[in-house]
Amino acid sequence: MPVHTDYLWFHTKKRREVIRITDEVSAIVGASGVREGLVLVSAMHITSAVYVNDWESGLIEDIQEWLEKLAPARPDYRHHQTGEDNADAHLKRTILGHQVVLPITAGALDLGPWEQVFYAEFDGQRRKRVVVKVLGL
Amino acid sequence: MPVHTDYLWFHTKKRREVIRITDEVSAIVGASGVREGLVLVSAMHITSAVYVNDWESGLIEDIQEWLEKLAPARPDYRHHQTGEDNADAHLKRTILGHQVVLPITAGALDLGPWEQVFYAEFDGQRRKRVVVKVLGL
Amino acid sequence: MPVHTDYLWFHTKKRREVIRITDEVSAIVGASGVREGLVLVSAMHITSAVYVNDWESGLIEDIQEWLEKLAPARPDYRHHQTGEDNADAHLKRTILGHQVVLPITAGALDLGPWEQVFYAEFDGQRRKRVVVKVLGL
Repeated sequence: MPVHTDYLWFHTKKRREVIRITDEVSAIVGASGVREGLVLVSAMHITSAVYVNDWESGLIEDIQEWLEKLAPARPDYRHHQTGEDNADAHLKRTILGHQVVLPITAGALDLGPWEQVFYAEFDGQRRKRVVVKVLGL
Repeated sequence: MPVHTDYLWFHTKKRREVIRITDEVSAIVGASGVREGLVLVSAMHITSAVYVNDWESGLIEDIQEWLEKLAPARPDYRHHQTGEDNADAHLKRTILGHQVVLPITAGALDLGPWEQVFYAEFDGQRRKRVVVKVLGL
Repeated sequence: MPVHTDYLWFHTKKRREVIRITDEVSAIVGASGVREGLVLVSAMHITSAVYVNDWESGLIEDIQEWLEKLAPARPDYRHHQTGEDNADAHLKRTILGHQVVLPITAGALDLGPWEQVFYAEFDGQRRKRVVVKVLGL
């Protein structure tokens, strides 16, 4: 059973960015040689998310605006007494989720017609990683 | 190592429905021959959810009402400028989650006493799919 | 391919508690003999969560306060007509998520620098379980 591990690196220019990573994950699956199995795609930093949703710029903005409403950037989080200023990023990533597991069928990602994989950065402008772990046959 | 893939199809009569799928997933696990492993149950459409929670009609309604409060149906999402009217469905499914991974032990789903698996449709009345991928020994 | 199953038991003194379980999961991975693979860590009760975030007491409190705001304890949930009083616990665990899948690389959990695994209890003071299922090579 092949197990294949790779990492995607990000260093965003802006503090918040949403980056489509379907093709990058797909390439890693291809390189793994796995024909049937699962791939875990998981943010290794706790102020980032990995999620599956629509590749439509309006919805991507809707999601960001909605996250700001549910988990607003505010000065008065307890976490900020440590000198941090990113408590909202920890909360936003909690709603979106920090990982997905994707099925691999016949050597390719087995995704529905509109499923796309995204990396959502909520506290960027520094190097951060996503682990991609492929397991199968 | 057996890997087994199946799909559950849904075509709900109403736009929003919650359907218990524990037995269907369990049957697929049984058919797979896997005795020890994992099964991924993942919505292939981005306006549906798969979640584990209580099989109690009051709570199922509570969850729906709560989702409506956190992610209300409204006309003014940017996504609707594309002609869509389902932005809230994308958000609701984000809170509930679109996938679960269930353990398989001794040939059966290894669930706690109250764990049940549900498919939650937020934009139905058309054919939609859930992938069920079994991996193990 | 080894598959290894273990369970973590909890019996909290308070109704709500957050318990770091990174070391316990790590020990189970070590005992499994798996060098490359995945480990599922999943709450078996539907009023508990398993999540990955920061091991910083301020943020842990921020998360709890935020969950209370998004999913408040209130008497008037429909679920309470069954005699239960824990509908909010079902909702809080939905936001946090009830499971994580962690990568195993070179025989150890492959976590980012700040990733820690937590068990969040929202209706404790009784025995509850988390399943830990290791799959790999």
